[in-house]
Amino acid sequence: MGILERLDSGEIVVGDGSFLFTLEKRGFVKAGLWTPEAVVEHPSAVRQLHTEFLRAGADVLQTFTFSATEDNMDSKWEAVNAAACDLAQEVAGGGDALVAGGICQTSLYKYHKDETRIKNIFRLQLEVFARKNVDFLIAEYFEHVEEAVWAVEVLREVGAPVAVTMCIGPEGDMHDVTPGECAVKLARAGADIIGVNCRFGPWTSLQTMKLMKEGLRDASLQAHLMVQCLGFHTPDYGKGGFVDLPEYPFGLEPRVATRWDIQKYAREAYNLGVRYIGGCCGFEPYHIRAIAEELAPERGFLPPASEKHGSWGSGLDMHTKPWIRARARREYWENLLPASGRPFCPSLSKPDA
Amino acid sequence: MGILERLDSGEIVVGDGSFLFTLEKRGFVKAGLWTPEAVVEHPSAVRQLHTEFLRAGADVLQTFTFSATEDNMDSKWEAVNAAACDLAQEVAGGGDALVAGGICQTSLYKYHKDETRIKNIFRLQLEVFARKNVDFLIAEYFEHVEEAVWAVEVLREVGAPVAVTMCIGPEGDMHDVTPGECAVKLARAGADIIGVNCRFGPWTSLQTMKLMKEGLRDASLQAHLMVQCLGFHTPDYGKGGFVDLPEYPFGLEPRVATRWDIQKYAREAYNLGVRYIGGCCGFEPYHIRAIAEELAPERGFLPPASEKHGSWGSGLDMHTKPWIRARARREYWENLLPASGRPFCPSLSKPDA
Amino acid sequence: MGILERLDSGEIVVGDGSFLFTLEKRGFVKAGLWTPEAVVEHPSAVRQLHTEFLRAGADVLQTFTFSATEDNMDSKWEAVNAAACDLAQEVAGGGDALVAGGICQTSLYKYHKDETRIKNIFRLQLEVFARKNVDFLIAEYFEHVEEAVWAVEVLREVGAPVAVTMCIGPEGDMHDVTPGECAVKLARAGADIIGVNCRFGPWTSLQTMKLMKEGLRDASLQAHLMVQCLGFHTPDYGKGGFVDLPEYPFGLEPRVATRWDIQKYAREAYNLGVRYIGGCCGFEPYHIRAIAEELAPERGFLPPASEKHGSWGSGLDMHTKPWIRARARREYWENLLPASGRPFCPSLSKPDA
Amino acid sequence: MGILERLDSGEIVVGDGSFLFTLEKRGFVKAGLWTPEAVVEHPSAVRQLHTEFLRAGADVLQTFTFSATEDNMDSKWEAVNAAACDLAQEVAGGGDALVAGGICQTSLYKYHKDETRIKNIFRLQLEVFARKNVDFLIAEYFEHVEEAVWAVEVLREVGAPVAVTMCIGPEGDMHDVTPGECAVKLARAGADIIGVNCRFGPWTSLQTMKLMKEGLRDASLQAHLMVQCLGFHTPDYGKGGFVDLPEYPFGLEPRVATRWDIQKYAREAYNLGVRYIGGCCGFEPYHIRAIAEELAPERGFLPPASEKHGSWGSGLDMHTKPWIRARARREYWENLLPASGRPFCPSLSKPDA
Repeated sequence: MGILERLDSGEIVVGDGSFLFTLEKRGFVKAGLWTPEAVVEHPSAVRQLHTEFLRAGADVLQTFTFSATEDNMDSKWEAVNAAACDLAQEVAGGGDALVAGGICQTSLYKYHKDETRIKNIFRLQLEVFARKNVDFLIAEYFEHVEEAVWAVEVLREVGAPVAVTMCIGPEGDMHDVTPGECAVKLARAGADIIGVNCRFGPWTSLQTMKLMKEGLRDASLQAHLMVQCLGFHTPDYGKGGFVDLPEYPFGLEPRVATRWDIQKYAREAYNLGVRYIGGCCGFEPYHIRAIAEELAPERGFLPPASEKHGSWGSGLDMHTKPWIRARARREYWENLLPASGRPFCPSLSKPDA
Repeated sequence: MGILERLDSGEIVVGDGSFLFTLEKRGFVKAGLWTPEAVVEHPSAVRQLHTEFLRAGADVLQTFTFSATEDNMDSKWEAVNAAACDLAQEVAGGGDALVAGGICQTSLYKYHKDETRIKNIFRLQLEVFARKNVDFLIAEYFEHVEEAVWAVEVLREVGAPVAVTMCIGPEGDMHDVTPGECAVKLARAGADIIGVNCRFGPWTSLQTMKLMKEGLRDASLQAHLMVQCLGFHTPDYGKGGFVDLPEYPFGLEPRVATRWDIQKYAREAYNLGVRYIGGCCGFEPYHIRAIAEELAPERGFLPPASEKHGSWGSGLDMHTKPWIRARARREYWENLLPASGRPFCPSLSKPDA
Repeated sequence: MGILERLDSGEIVVGDGSFLFTLEKRGFVKAGLWTPEAVVEHPSAVRQLHTEFLRAGADVLQTFTFSATEDNMDSKWEAVNAAACDLAQEVAGGGDALVAGGICQTSLYKYHKDETRIKNIFRLQLEVFARKNVDFLIAEYFEHVEEAVWAVEVLREVGAPVAVTMCIGPEGDMHDVTPGECAVKLARAGADIIGVNCRFGPWTSLQTMKLMKEGLRDASLQAHLMVQCLGFHTPDYGKGGFVDLPEYPFGLEPRVATRWDIQKYAREAYNLGVRYIGGCCGFEPYHIRAIAEELAPERGFLPPASEKHGSWGSGLDMHTKPWIRARARREYWENLLPASGRPFCPSLSKPDA
Repeated sequence: MGILERLDSGEIVVGDGSFLFTLEKRGFVKAGLWTPEAVVEHPSAVRQLHTEFLRAGADVLQTFTFSATEDNMDSKWEAVNAAACDLAQEVAGGGDALVAGGICQTSLYKYHKDETRIKNIFRLQLEVFARKNVDFLIAEYFEHVEEAVWAVEVLREVGAPVAVTMCIGPEGDMHDVTPGECAVKLARAGADIIGVNCRFGPWTSLQTMKLMKEGLRDASLQAHLMVQCLGFHTPDYGKGGFVDLPEYPFGLEPRVATRWDIQKYAREAYNLGVRYIGGCCGFEPYHIRAIAEELAPERGFLPPASEKHGSWGSGLDMHTKPWIRARARREYWENLLPASGRPFCPSLSKPDA
């Protein structure tokens, strides 16, 4: 079944997680550039990460093609897009997963708003995806809804289903278009699946989703909802989200979500009516597994990686120390307020800029 | 050159990092059991992690054989030890790295202290390592010095160099033998390299190392020093270290060290005279890279993974946002006190038990 | 000049601070009851506190008659009201200060809404104030605007100016009447001065004031604005404010505002157009002095107690330790983020109920 | 009964609390100078504070003569010392309390160590105390044991009992004389009562007391023990204690101890064998009451101010809100970890210098 058949029938679709941040920590991506040349330089590292997300329960493997355009990668862009499709399809072949071709905002829009030129950039990546015959398309990480609309218009040209996610918070896009208005514009442009990814943590992203849902409802429009938030807590976000926090990108460790935070996020997303639930930067395989485990009652099955995970810490029940055995229960982990181990550090930061 | 030639000549040896915790998050190890059956079940995942540590600058690849004994793994133990050697040697073959066979404390010692039976357990693993011809041996994660001495005595039987690390803090082993006395006993048992691994964070482990060093000096004994601390901050440790913290093992995220913390740790370890520096649980590849980068001036080279890392955030100097470009300097990251993003959580926890 | 002449001419009026909380810590008020029998039992303690607020710069001394009604104090109520007037007037006689008679919400309203009976309670206190000839009247600490309107209606009966403050936050009163609507109702009932006191910290109370101001503006109504916030930080407030925080009332210490916090509050209140600025629970004399010092440039004079206070820490410039001398400047104290000295405590609490 | 008769018979003696810090917040003392001219300028303010401490349970009223020497106050020093005696004796006359004349370290010692000149300074204050016939003498706030010994030697000249407290932490005095050695030197100089005051919070001061007690025991010396710690938490102390914290002296609010912290401190001091228990800077009357209430079972009576305080929050049991009534019990307050309400602030600070 394709992505829309799944969502139309009421299925929950689990997305995948972080590539740039995860592979940066593994040594294959350079922070600052954040380009995906690893697909050609270190394909086994990328293949391994796809495998881990698949095993963790992801129903969609997204091509690792973020920023893989000529303006960012020179002439390498085409080989990278093709190799990224091959890797995702190779791993997906071993399961029931779909492969989504992914594009993101250009680096040009903020300097000029040349619709023709920007659409051409999108179209070049799209030609590779079409040739490789990916299952559907995702336009993600847009901070301006106008550019996101252009992306949707291009992606619709080949007839595959189109998902689109913006990297905005409850205050809307960089021109103050509200989340509700953004959702309406994207639906009117023809997007099948609409939501947010990146830049904001779980609770903030769900607030944004609520506003998008209300915008669509008020405009009497239909679209599937999708959320792929950060794996970092950002209650102290400014308009630009985590990139404006002083900890970005090399001091975010204390903000990493626990698996229990992500189970709560998955449940709340589900209760809000979101059915495509995944993650963005900071989402490791065990976070994706947490989504799949939380929603296992609704989905009817556990992901393969749950063979290595006892629900709610139950794997601790055979520990030799009685006080650790006492942690083998849901109440313990649901109520834990984990310490930072950093008494000189504050709880919140003031965002830059 | 072997491990002792390197250390004798004054070289710095960079160890590798976390297998159990890292592979648990990737979906291949089960918390609670913490056994390494992944070497046979998911060899590509283990191979990939060895590759990442090698690329991050590790000079030693340790076989993933923690707890791989009959009492923990039934009859699988032998195949696991053999496969673990093959994987480490296969990856090390691509570089200049040494392979170390690793054993750890038994689950028997706390119930009875049957020296013969426990030494036999060690000897069985040792036979595999001898057959596979590993470069040297590491006995690690001992909370009782008596059992560590037995391990050293067994490992010395085959003639390869022997390193031994205890999982103790400044207060000493579970029978209150001080770190200094532990080091003396281990040196007298014939260990070539002595130190600590696991259970305590960077600053605590360095305190323990200082006490070990003083103990050896006061006894006029010589041994190389080795430290492989946690990648988690544990200023609130009790005697048992991180296993007694309420966050163990599923809520430790806010305690994860940044790369800058680890650079500081590497420098302080070096200044203390420790020359074998690596990590234990929580140490990801980028943490190992941080050791190799901090000590690059002394070593004269950067690790391969530094091609994807700008020293002290220098990769940010081409970011489009000026306030992020302003982070491309050492002072910024050295002085950052990262926020936890968790205003309902304390800084410290009271250890259980 | 009376209170309205002062405010009409553009003067800033500095209010006084905390009686119940301050005298509880000095041993003269019982928490739980929170009644002002100290005016008869320990008049010198009350006189001393009035003196301290006057000296700190207060232009208004409010009679210590909070809850001094028959339903709370039996037959003692009349003597308490009379003695409270005498004490305030005795101290005010030594300066230029006005004396305000104060009433607050009844304990009856939440059980039944008997307008006649409740107005009678107000009228009894008012008779004492009229007899003692106080300068003006304050109705404070109302969580339901309907009861506050009744209070204003009664207080207007004697012709003195009437101020009224509610103990609400930005979400409005207990029946969800917004701050803007509350202000409009109170202005229409004839209040001359309108605002909030108690239950919420500085930043929250200023948000509420902003909403009140906008409500009055939108209804084309005129009233002077007044704020007397808590001396405690309550960013984690629920609808009921600080009484619902787990720390209320015996664990609020870590939340006490510094003098620098209060200078910032005074400046922001002034910028918002508020001209009657004081404090409620937790406001000690030095907090009132901080208001008077911050607004000294506009007022043209410092309060008497500033003879014992160097502006922005300037009194430290003759300290023997150079690092303490270095604190004798505004930038130091404005930017200080004071530590709690409590590493096991969180930054925020979840309000009860 | 005199102070020694009380202590010799096993009685607990409750000291008084903070004058400089408390009167600074009330507007009568200037930070930086920290001199007690309020005794002549604002005697009613000083009288009121003595009254509050007496009412809170203090058995000793100490003359407010800290730093009241010629080098700090010019010719005013003598009138200040005399007036301070009069005020304390006037208030003590109303109860069973003793009056102690107090001296402290000079500002000269750090520049030169002229024993004769320094002893003369002490002797001048002593002459006033002798003339006024105070009950006993306290030499307090010494950071060098040598100067403390000189003070004891002078105070012994008139025959009244002599108490001496140093402002040191567990690391000892400014010349690294350990607490145990300090106690021994002071006992040998003839002090009857020995301990610490100021600069360090409750838990730290009790550690120091433990070391003093052990030092006396090891030297087979006898002396009564006395502790008067800060009312601020200082786990992050450096050698100089709270004066080296960045929050000193105008940002210490979040560190103020709760009454429950002080009950715990009183109990632990008692268990350690200390029988003279009071407070120093930051100790408000309700903190002194907390000592008297905690030790009421041993003493057999409550202080007068307990008429306004329900034990362990019991006064809340008639609150109208059920969740606040639920706080009327010891377990609630003993286990509360109060939030700071300051999410941008850390838990600990790095001490200056």
